[in-house]
Amino acid sequence: MQPENSTTAADPSMSSKDYYFDSYAHFGIHEEMLKDEVRTLSYRDAIMQSKHLFRDKVVLDVGCGTGILSMFAAQAGAKLVIGVDMSNIIDKAKRIVVDNQLSDKVVLLKGKMEEVELPVDKVDIIISEWMGYFLLYESMLDTVLVARDKYLKPDGLIFPDQATMHIAAIEDGEYRREKIDFWDDVYGFNMQAIKEVALTEPLVDTVDAQAINTTDCVFKKIDILTVKKEDLTFTVPFEITCTRRDYVHALLVWFDIEFSACHKPIRFTTGPRGKYTHWKQTVFYVPDEMAVDQDDVISGTITSKPNEKNPRDLDISIAYEHDGQNGVTTAALEYHMC
Amino acid sequence: MQPENSTTAADPSMSSKDYYFDSYAHFGIHEEMLKDEVRTLSYRDAIMQSKHLFRDKVVLDVGCGTGILSMFAAQAGAKLVIGVDMSNIIDKAKRIVVDNQLSDKVVLLKGKMEEVELPVDKVDIIISEWMGYFLLYESMLDTVLVARDKYLKPDGLIFPDQATMHIAAIEDGEYRREKIDFWDDVYGFNMQAIKEVALTEPLVDTVDAQAINTTDCVFKKIDILTVKKEDLTFTVPFEITCTRRDYVHALLVWFDIEFSACHKPIRFTTGPRGKYTHWKQTVFYVPDEMAVDQDDVISGTITSKPNEKNPRDLDISIAYEHDGQNGVTTAALEYHMC
Repeated sequence: MQPENSTTAADPSMSSKDYYFDSYAHFGIHEEMLKDEVRTLSYRDAIMQSKHLFRDKVVLDVGCGTGILSMFAAQAGAKLVIGVDMSNIIDKAKRIVVDNQLSDKVVLLKGKMEEVELPVDKVDIIISEWMGYFLLYESMLDTVLVARDKYLKPDGLIFPDQATMHIAAIEDGEYRREKIDFWDDVYGFNMQAIKEVALTEPLVDTVDAQAINTTDCVFKKIDILTVKKEDLTFTVPFEITCTRRDYVHALLVWFDIEFSACHKPIRFTTGPRGKYTHWKQTVFYVPDEMAVDQDDVISGTITSKPNEKNPRDLDISIAYEHDGQNGVTTAALEYHMC
Repeated sequence: MQPENSTTAADPSMSSKDYYFDSYAHFGIHEEMLKDEVRTLSYRDAIMQSKHLFRDKVVLDVGCGTGILSMFAAQAGAKLVIGVDMSNIIDKAKRIVVDNQLSDKVVLLKGKMEEVELPVDKVDIIISEWMGYFLLYESMLDTVLVARDKYLKPDGLIFPDQATMHIAAIEDGEYRREKIDFWDDVYGFNMQAIKEVALTEPLVDTVDAQAINTTDCVFKKIDILTVKKEDLTFTVPFEITCTRRDYVHALLVWFDIEFSACHKPIRFTTGPRGKYTHWKQTVFYVPDEMAVDQDDVISGTITSKPNEKNPRDLDISIAYEHDGQNGVTTAALEYHMC
């Protein structure tokens, strides 16, 4: 009996803060990210197809991990690439840079973005793969904004620079039974106490595109060049329209990413209609399934804010109204993403 | 980009020691264990088919988690079941016991086995699901031994009471390429620095029984009633014989569990010839594949000991000699399970 990923967490010499840093120390996480080809090839294409932008430039890679993006930037012609990461994985990245004969162009610095001393005052381009589940989980975007405000030249570029968050509803009865209703009868025992917790935690998993039974709605756009940290705490409206007579078991959120600085913008989606990514989608089960008819409207607001005790966690609230054949039903749901 | 299971680890108010406790606080881990029917039904059968042993007895459940084993013991007729767990999951377990009208028989105590005060001096039976990957990872057996030595009556029983560890060799070229040789060329970059680490870390995964190309050898038997903590640090010999002309890419370890106190002993295996369990098997890749012929012998020793810095981790050494057509090859390999 083990947690799936207890790696490094249990070193008694480490504080919990170290643990955060070191949750990225294990190569398995980087293996998963590198093998996510939607992710890695989008970054590679965006960088390698922008040689005109990278040539002789100074580039900062925020959260460089294994150094893959830094090395792409060097290949694209950057004069100097500075990679920063606070995880011990950077020790491996340093050797990788040497082993690939890129140490004249790529400099890796271990530490927090707020604290490291860069060898330059300003950079031309920031590259970063900061996205978490539900886009914002883990708040690594905050670190990119710190780097941007401190180091990016006024006309500098950020790869990627656009993110949009989408919401839709899904029919998901079978999986709901397996994940939520399972707790009603566990070998004959009622484990409602756990079901209640399970209902407040968004589920990160892949959803079949066929499960979507509403239109989808962009509820948040983020321009990384201009967004402020406080904009990442928000309450925004959404409205989706049912596309068939069906049941709604959950709301579904995903995000799209764009590198708009490229000659021809490069985009990828983490939505159910795209190819698999390791971000999957985020499922918010509703306690009571909704019986919906085609053209029914579900409208409401979605609130996301960093948890006060632990800012890497997210408190997400979804309030909605469904105006259906059986009258109007409303719900106000609180989720915690930890 | 996230670690798959960063849950709860990042609460800045928690020390790393709390983190250990709380790696079991998240219901997802318990969901996985409960849904492992080989595990849970074996325990249920062992307990429910032993009503003659449990009737009117005092039972201690070491690491009770959601309380499922404690409730089985109560159903089997125990007079009093005391469950102990240091994870916050026990707060849910307490409500589950109430919700299932078992609070007159099941008492749950939060804390470390070494520190909690039991309401009785001695118990008749200890039940515990303490097994980790490679049987011994996470060292929860140590806690069972503490409970046994402090609380178990001289003629008391332990469920389960027997464990055996097995080793065999496997052909695993395809998966080895995906997990190990992947690092040779990552989007054109050499990540040997990570490959070296990947080779020192046993891989927990399911293996097809067809992949086994040697006999299997029991290299360690543990009698939970009598084993001492120091017996869990060991160097033992093994010898396996190749069953076909093939390549050996890895050594494979699994364990079997037995409840020998039952009227008819109940056993389950976590090996590749049995049904899936969440323990899967443990794969030790060898740096150089071995070309083997039928009846070739691979013999050597396997050493397992808790890591000095972090006793929940294991340092595992495997030394072997292969006497094959091309002469004798030897290897001495060090692995770290963290």
